[in-house]
Amino acid sequence: MSRVITLLTDFGYESYFVPSMKGVILNINPNATIVDITHAIPQFNIFKAAFTLWASYKYFPRGTIHVVVVDPGVGTSRRALVIKTRNYYFVGPDNGVLMMAAEDGGIEDIRSIENRSYMRPVVSSTFHGRDVFAPVAAYISLGLDISLLGPRVTDPIKLPIPPNTVSKGFARSSIIYIDHFGNAYTGVRSSDVTIMGLGYGDTLRITVPRKNLEIEARFLRSYGFAKEGETLALINSEGFLELSVNRGSFASRYGIEEGDEVVISIVK
Amino acid sequence: MSRVITLLTDFGYESYFVPSMKGVILNINPNATIVDITHAIPQFNIFKAAFTLWASYKYFPRGTIHVVVVDPGVGTSRRALVIKTRNYYFVGPDNGVLMMAAEDGGIEDIRSIENRSYMRPVVSSTFHGRDVFAPVAAYISLGLDISLLGPRVTDPIKLPIPPNTVSKGFARSSIIYIDHFGNAYTGVRSSDVTIMGLGYGDTLRITVPRKNLEIEARFLRSYGFAKEGETLALINSEGFLELSVNRGSFASRYGIEEGDEVVISIVK
Amino acid sequence: MSRVITLLTDFGYESYFVPSMKGVILNINPNATIVDITHAIPQFNIFKAAFTLWASYKYFPRGTIHVVVVDPGVGTSRRALVIKTRNYYFVGPDNGVLMMAAEDGGIEDIRSIENRSYMRPVVSSTFHGRDVFAPVAAYISLGLDISLLGPRVTDPIKLPIPPNTVSKGFARSSIIYIDHFGNAYTGVRSSDVTIMGLGYGDTLRITVPRKNLEIEARFLRSYGFAKEGETLALINSEGFLELSVNRGSFASRYGIEEGDEVVISIVK
Repeated sequence: MSRVITLLTDFGYESYFVPSMKGVILNINPNATIVDITHAIPQFNIFKAAFTLWASYKYFPRGTIHVVVVDPGVGTSRRALVIKTRNYYFVGPDNGVLMMAAEDGGIEDIRSIENRSYMRPVVSSTFHGRDVFAPVAAYISLGLDISLLGPRVTDPIKLPIPPNTVSKGFARSSIIYIDHFGNAYTGVRSSDVTIMGLGYGDTLRITVPRKNLEIEARFLRSYGFAKEGETLALINSEGFLELSVNRGSFASRYGIEEGDEVVISIVK
Repeated sequence: MSRVITLLTDFGYESYFVPSMKGVILNINPNATIVDITHAIPQFNIFKAAFTLWASYKYFPRGTIHVVVVDPGVGTSRRALVIKTRNYYFVGPDNGVLMMAAEDGGIEDIRSIENRSYMRPVVSSTFHGRDVFAPVAAYISLGLDISLLGPRVTDPIKLPIPPNTVSKGFARSSIIYIDHFGNAYTGVRSSDVTIMGLGYGDTLRITVPRKNLEIEARFLRSYGFAKEGETLALINSEGFLELSVNRGSFASRYGIEEGDEVVISIVK
Repeated sequence: MSRVITLLTDFGYESYFVPSMKGVILNINPNATIVDITHAIPQFNIFKAAFTLWASYKYFPRGTIHVVVVDPGVGTSRRALVIKTRNYYFVGPDNGVLMMAAEDGGIEDIRSIENRSYMRPVVSSTFHGRDVFAPVAAYISLGLDISLLGPRVTDPIKLPIPPNTVSKGFARSSIIYIDHFGNAYTGVRSSDVTIMGLGYGDTLRITVPRKNLEIEARFLRSYGFAKEGETLALINSEGFLELSVNRGSFASRYGIEEGDEVVISIVK
């Protein structure tokens, strides 16, 4: 059966970890289409992996199996999970990394992977990506009924969601993601922006307590509407209020990091 | 239909941008074969993207659709293009990034992408890779007649071509590309080398005005004919006169950058 | 024919080298499934490439063709090889990079690639990945009898194997591989660990003469059994005694490099 299996790990691109997983998958299902989400998640950064999965999983065909291996607890008693949602399967460790996407996708069933028949014959203590998650994903791509994998799970671990406060002209939030270009995503959603009463052309004041910083930025439709090097804010493709520098890096100009608190007010 | 779609971006390997594009493509054409050219183009470096596309597009099967997203003008009035050449399709922004390859391949038609039926239902202002270019490429891979995408374009933006001066024993050119190994490609072509009268074993003097540098190098057939650590020049696999250090990096030894002017003469 | 071809190079991810190879392959066999092992091998690091191939080749389906291009001698008289083992083909330069995996897989035939009919029409002096190895791999994936490629080779170049000394309570070895997480693999195998008489919970003393270092570490089952930041030793997924820091990097904490000698004794 031709089915898509995606891989998202913190294994990097230089090691043998990812290709070993791909070999295992193709050995079980030679017709699987394997797509890399990314393997450059910073080591053990479960939140960044969860956000990256959430931002991309939904564009894949129905039935796609998303495998995530960001797994500092490998070889301990942490559970291995398969989650079935309305349109997808998610496979990975029970540390919260799957849940942001899975809850968004509508969870129908969660199973603890315990049936050794669907693992590699010898399971190492340190590489469940190859020995557990890859073969399980491959068998699901062949049509495996996930209830055969193990017992139902009702208490999967979830990640804490960073809190937001939003009111007319004001938002208190945090930087939840910094992208490849140094754009900083706040936790403020486009619906929050409506509550704030923010309109294109308005000027925002952004304060970052950790850095003792106060930044002014116009709220615009896209990068190219700002002058080169100008700091701006926009609603990005994922629906978040994003802080940016046109043709530059917001994060490196201001020394901003993921997790930083931000307080935003409309100056007009 | 099984067709190859290549992707070339400055999105990096760590973000959700590229896999989201792949998901969109596979949703529309599950049989597409997606190949990464690279996603490590330095941000907004249109010339480097154009050269990379030019150097690789021609090895792909007839009918391959090459998608390029190096797009600082996303969300502004810059046009989105599809170019049909004798053997390929090129999809990307109208900023010159497609033209070096497209002109090399023999342009037959250029269209401005305006028909919303072939875009995602909601088009963001900042991520046309996912919302415009990926779906358009996928529909072309299914056989879409590109005249349905929008009106013909007769004035696509082109990149300026760095000038060369070549005569017997002499060339004035610039560094057009530095590769992974630190080899520096001059704009001097193998046909220019014939005009110069350069032969294997000759010694070249290379001056780099910006660095106030004068370098001597033998002209050889391949790296391995130089001593370890020796500076050499050769005709590389793309047909350019290349400056190199055997088992070392020419660019980092001499502090050379893309765009540097070089003056080359034969010392014998 | 649908066959897997893997690629392992030191070409990096940012250049046009790897996609040009993929284009050549798909042009010859549009149904080939191409999988990247890695392209981030440090330049010309033949041993690291050989180890990476050895660690991953065996998970791929029978008949997979593994192409390796770490090739400082390209364009000189070094031979180009195809090696057939019980289950796989290996294609690459005759510099030892293929042999660790090939000998492990049971060599049945080795050929020198000399027949120009299976190369690209023009063969450059500097890019045999594209002009020789990629087309040869693609033709093998279509069923080419490798005896047509060239004469049998009986004296392929092999890499020296780093020596180990193991006895009760003691091992002298070296660091053969440092992975993405900074874990350092010694050359001590799990069978050696049995000879040493090492058991979970034992404490090891590791001395690194080059760094004048003495490190103590518990021997545990997996990372998660150590405290956060604790130095530990374990048998890793490839069967080697590995030195690690739980949720940290052993290599950067202690300044360890591949090739470093290590002397290990059981303290209890």
